[in-house]
Amino acid sequence: MIGHDIGRKPDTAAWVGVDVGGTKILAGVVAVDGSVVEVVHAETPSRSDAPHVVEDTIVRAVQRLGVRHAVAGVGVGAAGFVGLDGVVRFAPHVSWRDEPLQQRLTERLGLPVRVDNDANTTALAELTVGAARGVREALCITLGTGIGGAVVMGGEVRRGFQGLAGEFGHMQVVPDGEPCPCGQRGCWEQYSSGTALRRAALAHGAPDGTAGPQVTAAARSGDDWALRAFDDVGTWLGVGVAGLCSALDPEVVVIGGGLSAAGELLLEPARRALVAKLPGREHRTMPRLVGAGCGPEAGMVGAAELARRAPAG
Amino acid sequence: MIGHDIGRKPDTAAWVGVDVGGTKILAGVVAVDGSVVEVVHAETPSRSDAPHVVEDTIVRAVQRLGVRHAVAGVGVGAAGFVGLDGVVRFAPHVSWRDEPLQQRLTERLGLPVRVDNDANTTALAELTVGAARGVREALCITLGTGIGGAVVMGGEVRRGFQGLAGEFGHMQVVPDGEPCPCGQRGCWEQYSSGTALRRAALAHGAPDGTAGPQVTAAARSGDDWALRAFDDVGTWLGVGVAGLCSALDPEVVVIGGGLSAAGELLLEPARRALVAKLPGREHRTMPRLVGAGCGPEAGMVGAAELARRAPAG
Repeated sequence: MIGHDIGRKPDTAAWVGVDVGGTKILAGVVAVDGSVVEVVHAETPSRSDAPHVVEDTIVRAVQRLGVRHAVAGVGVGAAGFVGLDGVVRFAPHVSWRDEPLQQRLTERLGLPVRVDNDANTTALAELTVGAARGVREALCITLGTGIGGAVVMGGEVRRGFQGLAGEFGHMQVVPDGEPCPCGQRGCWEQYSSGTALRRAALAHGAPDGTAGPQVTAAARSGDDWALRAFDDVGTWLGVGVAGLCSALDPEVVVIGGGLSAAGELLLEPARRALVAKLPGREHRTMPRLVGAGCGPEAGMVGAAELARRAPAG
Repeated sequence: MIGHDIGRKPDTAAWVGVDVGGTKILAGVVAVDGSVVEVVHAETPSRSDAPHVVEDTIVRAVQRLGVRHAVAGVGVGAAGFVGLDGVVRFAPHVSWRDEPLQQRLTERLGLPVRVDNDANTTALAELTVGAARGVREALCITLGTGIGGAVVMGGEVRRGFQGLAGEFGHMQVVPDGEPCPCGQRGCWEQYSSGTALRRAALAHGAPDGTAGPQVTAAARSGDDWALRAFDDVGTWLGVGVAGLCSALDPEVVVIGGGLSAAGELLLEPARRALVAKLPGREHRTMPRLVGAGCGPEAGMVGAAELARRAPAG
């Protein structure tokens, strides 16, 4: 239990965001303006560890932050399927299966805790202090190994019926296309993601063993194979975004995640494809396709905002 | 101006819905339970007529209803791109281009008027008195010559940034696929619509000149070419719905429009494809894919509901 040594703490309520990533857990106290007041890092326990090991890591991190801050609530963003009840139905990196994480953390910390998908907490950061600030209709797309996403309508991150809205990565874009680890073929994330960039680079003549950041560096140096790889992946990004814009008519589409560090190398071909593919462009305002405004801590920043917005009690 | 002969009218407020279709304009007084109290039919003026001719037709229809009803407000559902301001940016069947229909009708009728896309008014009917009653997260898909659609989140039809949400028909499902009148190739409505059904039927050996309703009749009689055509079109319906369900996580997907009269001939292969294509099915509740609960008057019924829900003033 935390929060005994009140004398040394500021009396303003502190909100903690926790981002449970594939390799790292970040926990931090985040101010209303999105600035990180204090942060704690830990390694993500492996998939072979018991479910409670991840939970222990989160509890310790929050307790450490509680030494100097009057923690009022905790938000958690976790990769995977997270139900509206904060139950993690499935997580790709850890051993959670139907894990009642929100309830368990609430009990162990004695604090209000809210758990959501990490793409949703990232979107909440973009909506609050990032590239979608003040926007009521937006899509947020996170390009990493795969594609994560979130739907913002009416100024709120929409979770859908069971919390699974925004799972854009496995929308089929090519019938009988590239095989995907999900068991399907032709999923969007096989054409527009870090994985897709590496594959495209190799197809265009990259040296064996080329990794994602090397493709970006090579493209910046003007290497033809790298530019072609970004053109492929960016074009597929734009094609998929065009489909989502037909369905949802956002004002802004925010592209985040590791791959978005490539900036215009990725966004420029994506915008071209979006303009080419979105129907009725002579009758509509085109959505703005922009890079993320928050950095790699976005998931944590948004998780703190999730806690701050949670209704009391 | 209408509403002078108050003595002969019931004093309860009447709400009028108007559906502007490709060939017919329907206007009717609709009760809260969705039942149609009185209806007026008119032919839709042709694309070569001036924009005000359609407007005149709507005004006359509402005035006729006003003889026996104390009309309190009018809702209009029109095929095409309808902005949040009720301006019809583009309509496929009539000559409206950036037509301020909502404002013009409000002035001419002296009544509150709300204009929306006809797929959205149809969805509002399904949400209020149809197959999505009581549902907060739904998709409505209207299969006719093409595909119309609407997004329901948080219990409301979501219109997006400029009123264009739910335009599912031109999402690309096959790269370099069938050409579409929109100028693109591989649009979803080229694979799952009345147009697609006819093409599939001919490809499977239907007699020359076979029309949509004949395909349904032949499938009911067990003709192989017709069953195969429904299998193709239904499967593509399910593939597209799976993508939308990944993105939006609805509880219910309602299939309406002319093609939905085929019922299970269409829905059964669509459900099979949906189950096969929606990722993470072992961790989620599958959305229910159902036929529309409202008939061909749904657009009008929902338009009346649009008027009823409109904030006063």
